[in-house]
Amino acid sequence: MNFDEAGVIAALARIFGTSGRGVEIGIGDDAAVVKTSERTAITTDIAVEGTHFNTQWSSAFDIGRKITAANLADVYAMGGSPRFLVAAVTLTGQETMEWIEDLAEGIAHEASSCGAYVVGGDLAKGPCKVISITAIGQIDTAITRSGAQVGDLIYISSLPGWSAAGLAIIEKDLDGDMALHAVSEFCAPTVDYAAAVQFSNGKATSMCDISDALVIQAAQVAQASGVHLAFDKELIANHPEFVTLNELAESEGSDVWQWIFAGGEDHVFLATGKDLDGFCVGVVQQGAGVSGVEMKKAPDTWRHFQ
Amino acid sequence: MNFDEAGVIAALARIFGTSGRGVEIGIGDDAAVVKTSERTAITTDIAVEGTHFNTQWSSAFDIGRKITAANLADVYAMGGSPRFLVAAVTLTGQETMEWIEDLAEGIAHEASSCGAYVVGGDLAKGPCKVISITAIGQIDTAITRSGAQVGDLIYISSLPGWSAAGLAIIEKDLDGDMALHAVSEFCAPTVDYAAAVQFSNGKATSMCDISDALVIQAAQVAQASGVHLAFDKELIANHPEFVTLNELAESEGSDVWQWIFAGGEDHVFLATGKDLDGFCVGVVQQGAGVSGVEMKKAPDTWRHFQ
Repeated sequence: MNFDEAGVIAALARIFGTSGRGVEIGIGDDAAVVKTSERTAITTDIAVEGTHFNTQWSSAFDIGRKITAANLADVYAMGGSPRFLVAAVTLTGQETMEWIEDLAEGIAHEASSCGAYVVGGDLAKGPCKVISITAIGQIDTAITRSGAQVGDLIYISSLPGWSAAGLAIIEKDLDGDMALHAVSEFCAPTVDYAAAVQFSNGKATSMCDISDALVIQAAQVAQASGVHLAFDKELIANHPEFVTLNELAESEGSDVWQWIFAGGEDHVFLATGKDLDGFCVGVVQQGAGVSGVEMKKAPDTWRHFQ
Repeated sequence: MNFDEAGVIAALARIFGTSGRGVEIGIGDDAAVVKTSERTAITTDIAVEGTHFNTQWSSAFDIGRKITAANLADVYAMGGSPRFLVAAVTLTGQETMEWIEDLAEGIAHEASSCGAYVVGGDLAKGPCKVISITAIGQIDTAITRSGAQVGDLIYISSLPGWSAAGLAIIEKDLDGDMALHAVSEFCAPTVDYAAAVQFSNGKATSMCDISDALVIQAAQVAQASGVHLAFDKELIANHPEFVTLNELAESEGSDVWQWIFAGGEDHVFLATGKDLDGFCVGVVQQGAGVSGVEMKKAPDTWRHFQ
């Protein structure tokens, strides 16, 4: 054991703090107590070393950021604003205090970028590192996956595929500026939280985060809304980042559409509506399912049951 | 892989349901949306196969119950009422559908015993089974660990030690009616949630769950409240269950006080106050720390950082 548990708890309490807007009782009791409004969004994500993150590729700070971002994005994707988080972590006992502090700093940093606070958690010993975060947020009007209307346009907040590109580049040990950018997006994605707020304010009829993969979550929107989502590859290819991503895919021997449609872990927001402030990639039509998302093989991913 | 993931998600959605009092949007979107009141308690617990549960000893149903109980008890221990849960689970892929369904049934059963609902979750693949649950509850007046007053009496909701007894009995393969009871308490403790409500209604000055171990959490109350907690072994020995527990300890070659003070995982509520509806085990005095809790060796446990 490279650290003592009391020391870890003291460090976490210091990093996460116990005060913040709306926090009545923070870390240090059986449960945190926070101020809430009439309607609250709740979401949880669990990440496992080796499956979702790898300490050889990612710093503890980036791992903390990435897992926190996944939760924050889910609250925004419902049209809410994240307020409070709890983090449950298993450690092997072989971690250094510095690694643990960096992980907590990464979680706190990403939360703080959205005005959210970590108010509690749990720590346990296990055979591998597992990080589970739950976020709760304030929500006025929920934007579900079931409101897409025939005639709506389909928007994305940014181009998906960078995270999948990063993973491919790490595995093949490529370099170059754009390769580094992709790796950075894989290790800790830049989530455009403000885009979700803009989609909400623009009265998006449906919205979701596509971190599991665009094709999977677009199909969920189509099914929940009882419509057909027609994507247009020519529109997507007009995205300002497409040329760079495509060049990376070609240099790496991958199909860029595989990265875009099936990559996952991008935390891009997908919304439907009219005149939204985002990048238009298709149209909602009568029917069922999704079209315009052809790629070489189907995505392989474990989905949320949330 | 013994099951397909879409099948698991469908089964979980069926078991947990998507409707319930206060649930506006349940399983099936980026986040659940629930009705909340002005003040909310949040707590999280993580349990790891091999550390906190073992599939050789415990049924999936009991594992689900136990981990859920840990969270529900923490909300009650703050003076709150649990309302909503999210469950994040890692599976190895070797589980049967039946095992997974039983786990979910155990979680739903324990939640339902408190009028709480599972509103979402996450599922991931990992090298071992890990279950992380977060509970949120409604709370009017929080009962912290810091309110114990000199002159208060100390109460417990039931006799701790049964879970530790159960573990010892499993390890030594003992049998007999009381041995079976202890094993059952270890596998899925019976939590007297109503006792916590009675402590709250009786205006307890402080309250906590002692699942980490009585000595650890009593010391936290003493420190947070700036008082001394004087336990009285003679009072504890008068508890109607003490004789049976002591006989088990003697037959097993253990120190009964070790089980009672340092056992952990009992989810007994410890409260201070006057004329509370519980079993009195001591008195709050001026000073610091805890007395009357002598045993043969110090407890060894990983504590919550909550």
